Amino acid sequence: MKWLKVATDEIVAGIKRSIEGLNLKDVERMIELMLEARDKKIFIVGMGRSGFVGRAFALRLMNLGFNVYFLGETITPAAGEGDLVIAISGTGTTKIVLTASAAAKEIGATVIAVTSFPESPLGKGADHVVVLVGRTKMGWPKEKDYLARQLIGEWEPLTPLGSIFENNCMVFLDGLIVELMHKLGRTEENLKRRHATIE
Amino acid sequence: MKWLKVATDEIVAGIKRSIEGLNLKDVERMIELMLEARDKKIFIVGMGRSGFVGRAFALRLMNLGFNVYFLGETITPAAGEGDLVIAISGTGTTKIVLTASAAAKEIGATVIAVTSFPESPLGKGADHVVVLVGRTKMGWPKEKDYLARQLIGEWEPLTPLGSIFENNCMVFLDGLIVELMHKLGRTEENLKRRHATIE
Amino acid sequence: MKWLKVATDEIVAGIKRSIEGLNLKDVERMIELMLEARDKKIFIVGMGRSGFVGRAFALRLMNLGFNVYFLGETITPAAGEGDLVIAISGTGTTKIVLTASAAAKEIGATVIAVTSFPESPLGKGADHVVVLVGRTKMGWPKEKDYLARQLIGEWEPLTPLGSIFENNCMVFLDGLIVELMHKLGRTEENLKRRHATIE
Amino acid sequence: MKWLKVATDEIVAGIKRSIEGLNLKDVERMIELMLEARDKKIFIVGMGRSGFVGRAFALRLMNLGFNVYFLGETITPAAGEGDLVIAISGTGTTKIVLTASAAAKEIGATVIAVTSFPESPLGKGADHVVVLVGRTKMGWPKEKDYLARQLIGEWEPLTPLGSIFENNCMVFLDGLIVELMHKLGRTEENLKRRHATIE
Repeated sequence: MKWLKVATDEIVAGIKRSIEGLNLKDVERMIELMLEARDKKIFIVGMGRSGFVGRAFALRLMNLGFNVYFLGETITPAAGEGDLVIAISGTGTTKIVLTASAAAKEIGATVIAVTSFPESPLGKGADHVVVLVGRTKMGWPKEKDYLARQLIGEWEPLTPLGSIFENNCMVFLDGLIVELMHKLGRTEENLKRRHATIE
Repeated sequence: MKWLKVATDEIVAGIKRSIEGLNLKDVERMIELMLEARDKKIFIVGMGRSGFVGRAFALRLMNLGFNVYFLGETITPAAGEGDLVIAISGTGTTKIVLTASAAAKEIGATVIAVTSFPESPLGKGADHVVVLVGRTKMGWPKEKDYLARQLIGEWEPLTPLGSIFENNCMVFLDGLIVELMHKLGRTEENLKRRHATIE
Repeated sequence: MKWLKVATDEIVAGIKRSIEGLNLKDVERMIELMLEARDKKIFIVGMGRSGFVGRAFALRLMNLGFNVYFLGETITPAAGEGDLVIAISGTGTTKIVLTASAAAKEIGATVIAVTSFPESPLGKGADHVVVLVGRTKMGWPKEKDYLARQLIGEWEPLTPLGSIFENNCMVFLDGLIVELMHKLGRTEENLKRRHATIE
Repeated sequence: MKWLKVATDEIVAGIKRSIEGLNLKDVERMIELMLEARDKKIFIVGMGRSGFVGRAFALRLMNLGFNVYFLGETITPAAGEGDLVIAISGTGTTKIVLTASAAAKEIGATVIAVTSFPESPLGKGADHVVVLVGRTKMGWPKEKDYLARQLIGEWEPLTPLGSIFENNCMVFLDGLIVELMHKLGRTEENLKRRHATIE
């Protein structure tokens, strides 16, 4: 059971590093864009595990009273000018996310990218980027590579594929929810009133 | 390629029979309950293929401007008193549908069952039942059994498991959408305006 | 309740027309490709209501013992050379379906398109096309347009957006399942053994 | 932006506490049961955000070569004797999870519950329980209540509803994946070979 401990330590360290590494001005701008979109629609886009993290975020935004939808689910309506798309992809290269993001731009929606790579196609095409570090499927972020591998005494990474990014993203977006709660003056009781009662 | 033809003929015959077999008063009441729920929420519930048919229905209700949700998807909010639950199950015995339906009743929501068996647990527990005939996973509807098998000259059914019910249900619910469109004075142009633009 | 009857009649007529309009050689080839992919993987791709019809098809293929996946769901594995992608889109222009189809081609997978428009981007990019007529979101198929509108005495279509295609597709694919059942010597009992027991 | 920092600190502290609080014998037994189920099927069950965390886990298990399914998705096959169900619910009271878990027991499958409350209906009905602390929708775990609120200087929780449990669970299950990777001698390269190529 050594690896469970080593891996979760690594994940926790990754989360801390990613939160400390946030450019708070970019986060502030993301929050502004979200608050401005309150009488518009917000669409969350992501594939695979980034998509599950995106859905967990969408659920809390729904609890907060936003008109929010997850792309690909049944009742996703038309996006239009002034709507907001939040696209999540560690590598910034996930093709279906890029397609959705480009379609959103054409329609006149604003696209926020949450990614580790601002120079990725997703980052470059977005109106606003929040950089969240994290080793992703593309490889370890350079500065972390050597140290981390030294630390764990082997070259095989502890946290396979995009796992580090996805955990970082889950915690970052849950932190954002609390920030939004306070900005909106919402209490937990408000959220509970909107939470699923049939499940 | 003989079987494709024989099976699709059987499915088409099944659809016709199920539409002719509808109790129009029950359908009328279903429409009334749906129109009354226009400023409330509508939840569609179904598992497996009945669930996919239910999602196709939910998508069109969204196009028509209803506040509609499919149970189990991300942004499903709290159900409350006066909300409407439409539960789809050919056999009327799908456990998760029964659980959701019972939870909805407790909360004070109204439950409509769309099923082949009004005496099933789902049918008995619902506030309103629309019976849609169709061989389901439980077996062939009695009166159809002998004739159908004679006709096709063998005992192995052409349309496996619940397929007949699911096709009947797809067509019935799409017919209902057109009825609702006319009742609401909606044109196709209205629907298109609400249809997904990013897909 | 006049419209329910008129619309379901229209849908049933559309289904019959689409089945009669099938090029059986193309369907035969589709079946061959599917049987050849039995020790490979099959991926079903579709968005919105075409996606729900695709999922209903995938579920029955799973019942028949195929290694089948629906793109975008959790446990979708890597596609590789020799795998089969079945892409469903009435108009043949749904962007995310095109993206997935192009990605599949790059990897060396074979793409079958089920669409009303063989000259659409999806149709042109696919290795094999099965044309299934049906008015789709793009408009009515030309030859049907005038007659159908005459018939129903108005210009507002009875079956909004892509509904005709989706119903046609549901019945066609269920017919294909029965054809595959007979080709594989499967009985309904075999299917039931693989059908979800927790639902 | 004070709250983002405070909340993510709280979440990270919660994750650490939950990992330290694990009964490693129970985790060891969970791993044993999973390894024994390698030539059987594993079904993951969860609703809402616990469901998204469960899907992220299922995806990694698929990467590792397990026959894993997420309940409610399209291609979920029949469960049978000897199969394994992993049910995730912070409170251990989510009705649909209880229904699925009871259905699984009837069929002869083994049920593992991952929950904060071993005395909950889910915990009591399961064959094996892994307790993962975390404030859940039911309220704070008693022992944590007073201290935590003192600490944060207010009564309104920073991490609404079940968020703490869901983050804890995401990290715990990702740690489990690394443990399983080492037990199975899998490298990241192996995982990548099974990871979605069309997305």
